[in-house]
Amino acid sequence: MELEFVDFLKNALPPHPQLRLGVGDDAAVLRLAERADCVVTSDLLAEGTHFTRSEATPEQIGRKALAVNLSDLAAMAARPLAATVSLLLPRREAAPLARSLLAGMLPLAAEFNVAIAGGDTNCWDGPLVVAVTALGESTTECKFRRDAARSGDAVVVSGELGGSRAGKQFDFRPRVNEALRLAAEFDVHAAMDVSDGLLLDLSRICAASRCGAELNLASVPVAAAARAPVAVRSSSLGEGSLAQLEPHLARALTDGEDFELLLTMPAEEAARLTRDNTFDLRWTVIGRIAAESGLRGVDASDKSIPLAPIGFEHGADKS
Amino acid sequence: MELEFVDFLKNALPPHPQLRLGVGDDAAVLRLAERADCVVTSDLLAEGTHFTRSEATPEQIGRKALAVNLSDLAAMAARPLAATVSLLLPRREAAPLARSLLAGMLPLAAEFNVAIAGGDTNCWDGPLVVAVTALGESTTECKFRRDAARSGDAVVVSGELGGSRAGKQFDFRPRVNEALRLAAEFDVHAAMDVSDGLLLDLSRICAASRCGAELNLASVPVAAAARAPVAVRSSSLGEGSLAQLEPHLARALTDGEDFELLLTMPAEEAARLTRDNTFDLRWTVIGRIAAESGLRGVDASDKSIPLAPIGFEHGADKS
Repeated sequence: MELEFVDFLKNALPPHPQLRLGVGDDAAVLRLAERADCVVTSDLLAEGTHFTRSEATPEQIGRKALAVNLSDLAAMAARPLAATVSLLLPRREAAPLARSLLAGMLPLAAEFNVAIAGGDTNCWDGPLVVAVTALGESTTECKFRRDAARSGDAVVVSGELGGSRAGKQFDFRPRVNEALRLAAEFDVHAAMDVSDGLLLDLSRICAASRCGAELNLASVPVAAAARAPVAVRSSSLGEGSLAQLEPHLARALTDGEDFELLLTMPAEEAARLTRDNTFDLRWTVIGRIAAESGLRGVDASDKSIPLAPIGFEHGADKS
Repeated sequence: MELEFVDFLKNALPPHPQLRLGVGDDAAVLRLAERADCVVTSDLLAEGTHFTRSEATPEQIGRKALAVNLSDLAAMAARPLAATVSLLLPRREAAPLARSLLAGMLPLAAEFNVAIAGGDTNCWDGPLVVAVTALGESTTECKFRRDAARSGDAVVVSGELGGSRAGKQFDFRPRVNEALRLAAEFDVHAAMDVSDGLLLDLSRICAASRCGAELNLASVPVAAAARAPVAVRSSSLGEGSLAQLEPHLARALTDGEDFELLLTMPAEEAARLTRDNTFDLRWTVIGRIAAESGLRGVDASDKSIPLAPIGFEHGADKS
């Protein structure tokens, strides 16, 4: 099936102006824009750990495997260029599964002008594993880093948070175009994408930037899906301070898989972004960066609540 | 363990002059040499499919996972630059295993000036999976392609073939430096690395270049390891013409995992390469490219033997 799949790929993949040599050789060759740096990220999805076959179709899994990587490129304000796809396919259904994964990936690749440049297709007796590496071109001089938050910055988030596992985790749009426009038009300090939950991811920006953050809890944009009843909680909120919060707010803070942009920027820039919002996307100032470490929430009655950096981890962490 | 591992990585990884942003952010940022294209390849190793834990230490597995990707870069005459490493780690031994894999990778990365630029570390209840993507800089204008063989070219191979699974599969040196020098000093047409066996890989060059090849069987350089008795044959030679050959020759033609360079080049260039060999590596002219398709062997008595493109596949194929 493997050589056939390479042939299938060669036919299924559209040409790309920057792909000088694609699928079928020892490696792919890509031409970057002049003066652009190469931005690279890898994210792997494994059956039973990151998804189950009962909750998602192969097309959804393929789409998500690419989308999570594009979300990482967005979080660096990088323009997507190409991706490689390494597969471990359950032997009995390898060929149709590979085609379905690709069918889920290709529309997203086309939308964001991503060349599927190669990969490695393997059959085995284990569960499905999809390992994607995405390459992009830098558009800023190493901005959008996690370690660039400054005390006094506003904390801004795109979209709405929580409840993503009800569906958004599979059909979210990576915030690529919004990030590119932000990088061009606004002074963004730190940035990352919210994959493991707002509190956990914000704590990572704070750790990298050696600072803390205070959240205005009433302003956190809660997705409708976070208000739906859930049979099983995806993350344990423990016995701590989060138990004091409304359940839907706690979910927005910790559910993860939102794939929204989390930014810090000067307060006046945040005001400009939210006041005259000409994006087709909601932006919300949810707090500010503080010099002292730790995360705190301030509720409607102005009470300060220490917030533990709890989030959603599949036993997984990007490095 | 995951955040700890990222911290461990940050401390364990040396700086790299072209790595502008490394492990710990959403993506890594690499600066390529001016006018260089980005060459990218992905290769995944899975326990039980590509290796067993009883035949190899974690350090050997880590080294090999990087080495096979560097071999692919060599096969494109690309200068290695960086790699990302995505891991699926058996949960019970995740942390020590991750460190051992990295310990096996780092000396090779240092030798070939490869920045470990990021990745994705996951725990699960399945077997070990190591997915590496390597990035390099092009040094030629898309030469060393599989589709560039021409009728009349000499077929040249580096080193010796066969028996690699006795040990060389884990300690082979990717032919990176030799490929870079070849690209600079010789007129190479087609190139690839021998990973799945000489016959199968040569058949891929022939298919891509729409030609065939004739091998002078007596000249194929057979590794000593291919002469050792083996308990289990790694590839089935079937009932075909290969059964007529000496077993060690059949192994050199089909064993795979040699990670030597397979080249086609004008006959006079091949003569220059082999006559005045100033490489610290053996080069052997083993045949010629023919206009008519198919692989044929010519034995010492000048008898022509059709050769099936049999090789070693783990149910795996690079795409």
